[in-house]
Order: sequence, then structure tokens, then C-alpha cells
Amino acid sequence: MTFRRFLSSYVPPKVRAIVFEKYGKPTDVLRAHTHELPLLTPTTLHIRFLASPINPADINQIEGVYPARPTFTKELGILSDGEHKELAVGGNEGLAEVIAVGNQIKDLNIGDWVVIGRSGFGTWRTHAAATPNDVIHINKEGIGLIQAATLTVNPCTAYRMLKDFVSLNEGDFVIQCGANSGVGQSVIQIAKAWNINTINIVRNRPDVEDLKARLKSLGATHIITDEELRSHKTKDLIKEWTGGNNIKLGLNCVGGEVAQEMSKYLGNSGHHVTYGAMSRKPFSIPASLLIFKDIKFSGYWMSRWYKTHSKEERGEMLSEIIRLVKQGKLGNVAYEEVLWGSQNENDESLKNKFLSALDKASAGFHEKKQILKMQS
Amino acid sequence: MTFRRFLSSYVPPKVRAIVFEKYGKPTDVLRAHTHELPLLTPTTLHIRFLASPINPADINQIEGVYPARPTFTKELGILSDGEHKELAVGGNEGLAEVIAVGNQIKDLNIGDWVVIGRSGFGTWRTHAAATPNDVIHINKEGIGLIQAATLTVNPCTAYRMLKDFVSLNEGDFVIQCGANSGVGQSVIQIAKAWNINTINIVRNRPDVEDLKARLKSLGATHIITDEELRSHKTKDLIKEWTGGNNIKLGLNCVGGEVAQEMSKYLGNSGHHVTYGAMSRKPFSIPASLLIFKDIKFSGYWMSRWYKTHSKEERGEMLSEIIRLVKQGKLGNVAYEEVLWGSQNENDESLKNKFLSALDKASAGFHEKKQILKMQS
Repeated sequence: MTFRRFLSSYVPPKVRAIVFEKYGKPTDVLRAHTHELPLLTPTTLHIRFLASPINPADINQIEGVYPARPTFTKELGILSDGEHKELAVGGNEGLAEVIAVGNQIKDLNIGDWVVIGRSGFGTWRTHAAATPNDVIHINKEGIGLIQAATLTVNPCTAYRMLKDFVSLNEGDFVIQCGANSGVGQSVIQIAKAWNINTINIVRNRPDVEDLKARLKSLGATHIITDEELRSHKTKDLIKEWTGGNNIKLGLNCVGGEVAQEMSKYLGNSGHHVTYGAMSRKPFSIPASLLIFKDIKFSGYWMSRWYKTHSKEERGEMLSEIIRLVKQGKLGNVAYEEVLWGSQNENDESLKNKFLSALDKASAGFHEKKQILKMQS
Repeated sequence: MTFRRFLSSYVPPKVRAIVFEKYGKPTDVLRAHTHELPLLTPTTLHIRFLASPINPADINQIEGVYPARPTFTKELGILSDGEHKELAVGGNEGLAEVIAVGNQIKDLNIGDWVVIGRSGFGTWRTHAAATPNDVIHINKEGIGLIQAATLTVNPCTAYRMLKDFVSLNEGDFVIQCGANSGVGQSVIQIAKAWNINTINIVRNRPDVEDLKARLKSLGATHIITDEELRSHKTKDLIKEWTGGNNIKLGLNCVGGEVAQEMSKYLGNSGHHVTYGAMSRKPFSIPASLLIFKDIKFSGYWMSRWYKTHSKEERGEMLSEIIRLVKQGKLGNVAYEEVLWGSQNENDESLKNKFLSALDKASAGFHEKKQILKMQS
């Protein structure tokens, strides 16, 4: 077995990483840093990142306003200015290839694809040392690299919210606001694959008919703008759509008025699940919805799920989602590849390239997801 | 067996009742009405009410703004003005004695005490025909009449909310606003009996120290006013009280700002349960509490529980609550008896006596509960 545990020619590569030593504005605190990989131990892996997206929460995390903290460690070597500080690597989602396996690890092999299975690991780097519990092995047959790199946040959030709050059967109805978000698009596709109907609320905009057509093509059953939702005729319209059946689940990543309005359309004992607050506004709950209609309000946070569920459960979820991808039922959101991490580039250039991608990511998350494609 | 099924001397009594034929202001729509009891059938009972409280929801029900509808029926005979209309009897809670039993009914006997086990039955009357499913049999040994008549709303609501949302162990913490309400006082006593700590929020008032002393004597662990709750020092104070342990459950019958403020003190994965809205204001939920702290917001409505649970479950709950009463761990709220329903009084007099009690009940629910004590 030794040959695939430790190739005799194995020379640990130089790591190129985007790191920070304290919270702050990303352009102020992020730097590129080149360092050695820690030595392989019998219980660790070396992995080479293939692709790592920039997600909204990654930025909040660097700003210090996100409850999932990154891992600050002295194991990332000494900074170019000579100081040996605790550093954290940015990024939480990513796909990597196993390049070396400690000899007590039995279930992972060189060449395997893994995705990062916990928050705060740090994925904006070319290589890393990891434990088996940091990663989830995925079967790479028939799945694209970019697709595989973007499974663990949006599609998994959509998948879990459709599974964990109410029991949905074929023909049931789900309503969501922010339906054009990354998670929203996954909700539409997974629901469609499971024969669950979606009522999708989007913000009104000049090109709303294009957007409606696009969401329809993903499998959206009905689409309505936030303005239409406030109209007095909407009650009858939605009743016509559902044939009077209860809407069992509402998914909210917007907050404010639309989240509140949406809760009125849930049927008795429906569940209203919040996973984001793009409007940055709280929403208000009338007691009658809680008491007499028995509507339940909860939140969902993918990071907590990863923390509280086993390797087996995480693997099972990924397998089911990958099956949908392979069946062509779950596609990519729009994205832009950023070639990054070449061993030949200097730190300054790597930093600038990264910040330019970050800038695009901050400007419009809903347009194109920025994904670092590693050139190491 | 015949002798106790159908006493040969049994003459069905005249029923004196407070009825309404349409929703409206209670003083406008309520009238006293005297009628014959429907004939006993093999599957029905005749019961004689002993005591029936006037609860806030009863009034909302008459106004037509309460989702649990009363039973409108033509079986209550012809009104004194000669019209045969569908009538409903007011009141939802009450204690009665079984006075006749249809011969197919095996588990109830003449002389048994029963409480009404569903919404909308109508308890402001001296006698009624009922089915076994309308009532819950209780063991009358060692429990007072007034106490028995006031079990099914407040103590049962408190009991279920402490049982059904989170798993509470000895030493755990519950927080509640409106702690001086009927349910609030039951929460304090039941929690105390189970060795669960309560943090009780009350409105500030001139005699707040008296109120604090009274709630303390019922078993309240800590008491704080809504004004104190808003102070910046409260966080440290509550942390000191709980020794840093999570508060698992929050109970809300007020709404508005205090309900919102209270939610911040719940620990991770805590549950915020609304069962009333005395302030008539909705409350607002910040997304971070839902997403990152995993606080769940639900409502509780005792009527729904009765509707969705079996005779056995209802009986089991009542037995446990009666055990606490008999152990002296669950006392009465303050009340005032209104002698009512004498066969010798005319309808006008019965109506006026009732409206005067209703007036007191509307003026201050938290002072003294008005309870009709039947003179039939």
C-alpha cells in the first residue's frame, strides 16, 4: 500500500495563500503569503485546492461580524516582514485533490476529490494540511470541477431546508423570497427534481420578464414580484395556484417587509425559515400567525449543520446532491473563473488579482460568482 | 346497572343560559334564555354546571374576532320573543356534574365531575346535553370546586408550554413576560414544583414591590420589570442569575418591545413561545437570532391542543395537574364568585347579573377572575 500513501518523489509544494492576522476591511487586512506546508503526520492529509469560490459570508468573516470564526494559527510560517503571528486563511468553500495521506488514514487516497466540510478552514490557498474530519470525499466521476467546488454552501443549504423543517410530498407547495439568489436557484431546481411546486418572489426590476423566464427554465412553478405580492389580488391568485392547498414552507433570505408578507401565505402549521437578511431589516410577526395559525419561525445556518452532523451524514447529503447534478437536474449558478495561485507569481501580484475578484464579488453577488481556479 | 344510569325520578331541569344569535358587542348581543334540555339519548349525558369562569377569549369569541367559533344550534329551543333561531351559549371553561348518562356510555357515572374539554361548547349555562368527548372526567377527591373549574385554560396552557417545546431538566431556566397573568402564575408554580428556575418580567407599577413579593411567594426565582430589562446592566445580572447557563424557553403573552427584548436573553437553540398579545403589538425578529443563535419562534393555543389530542392524553394532563393541586403546589388565582342561574330568577335579572360580572371581568382580568357559581 505504501506506494499510494507516500510517493517517494513527493516534495511538499509551496503554499500560496490569502491570509489575515486581524479582522477588518478586507482590502486593509488581507495579504498574500507564501509558506511551507506543515509536515505530513500519520493522521493528516495534504490537499491541493482546485477551485475556491468567494461567498458573501467569507467577507463578513474577515470583517469580524460573522459568528463562525476562522482558524488563527502559527503553523502558517513567518510573514515576509519577519513576524511570526497567528494567521487565518480566508474562504470557507472549496474543492481539493488529495496529494498525500498519512499512513493511519484508511478511507482516503491520493487523487481523491474532497470538499471542505466545516466553516473556518480557509480555502483561499493552493495547498493545505487537513484532517479527515475537515473534508468530505466526493466521487469525481461525471461532475465538473466548478460544480464540485460550489456544492457545500448553496445547494446544501437549499437541500437541507427542503428536508429538515416540514415533511414535503410530491405536489406540495413552497414559497420563497430572494428566489434569484444562489440558494434560491438551488431550491427551485431541487424542488423541481422532487416534484415540489415553488412560488418564487423576486424584486421587481426593468428586466423582470427575462428573470422570470430564466427561473422558469430552471423549474420555477410560479414567479411573482414583491410589488405584485403586496397587491390585494394576490391572495386569490395564490389560492388559484395552490388549488387551496396549504403552503407548507417559506424560505427567506431577504427579511423586512417581504419576509413578513410571505408569512401570511403559509398554511396552518407552516414553517417560515430565515437563512439570510439581504435587506438588512428585521421582520415583524403578528401574534395571531403564531397562536392561531401555528406558523413556526426558525433560522437555518449551514455551518451549524456541518458542525453538528457526522461524516456519514455529510457524505450522504453530498452524494444525493451530486446524483442530482449528474442527472442534469441541478446546474451551476453564473460564475467567473479567476486563474490564481501560480507558483511563479509574486505575492503582490497574487494579492492584487485576488482583491480585484473580491471587488467584483462584493459589487454584485447575484450576477456572477467569483471562483478562484488554482494554477498551482 | 340501570339505577345509576337513569334514576326513575329523573326530571330534566330547565336550563338557564347566556346565549347569542350573532357576533357583536357582548352587551348588545347577549341575552339570558331559559329552555328545556334535549332528551337524553343512549350516547349522550346530561350535566349540571357547578362553576364557569369568564375568560378574556370568551369575550373575543362573542365579538366574532376569535378563531374558535362557538356552536350555533337550533336545539336550544325558542326565544321568549317566539323566534326559533340558531343560538350559541357563551363561555368555554367550566366544571359540571354528571346528572344523567345514556345507557351506551360505560365510563361515566351520575355524580362524576367533568370539565369541558373543547372550545366553543358553551359553559355559561346551568345544564347541558353533552357527548363523552366534550368532557374530561376528573377525580373530585381533594380538589375544590373553583379550582377544578379553572384548570383547563390557564394551568393547562402553562403545563403544556413547559412540556412541549424544549426538554427542561431540573435547574434549567425559563423566562416569561406578563408573569403576573393567570397563565404566568401557573408557569411559576408548575416550574417551581419541577425545580425549574423562572425569570419573570412584569410591567413596572407603583406597587411593584408587593407584586414581586407575591410572585416570589408563588415560587418565582427572579423577577424583573420591563424597564429594568431594557437597562444595559441586565445582561450581566441575568448571566449572574443563570450562572452563564442558557435560558431554554421564553413565554410571551405581551408582544411588542418586551417580547422582542426577551428573545435576546434566550440561549442558543432556545424556543420563544407566544400565547397572547396583551399589548396588541407585533414584535420584530432580527435575522441573526434566527440564523446564528437558532432561536425558534412558535405560538401556543390551548384550543388547538384539545382538538388534536385524545381523551386519554387530555385525561393524563388533567391528572398530573390535579396531583399538583392536591400537593398544594398549584393554587388559585384571585377570583370572585358570582352566584348565578337560580331557577327562581327571571331572565332579565339573570342577564343583568351576568353583564355586571362581565363588566368587572373586562375591566381588569388580572385583578379577580369572575366565576359564575351555579345556583341551580
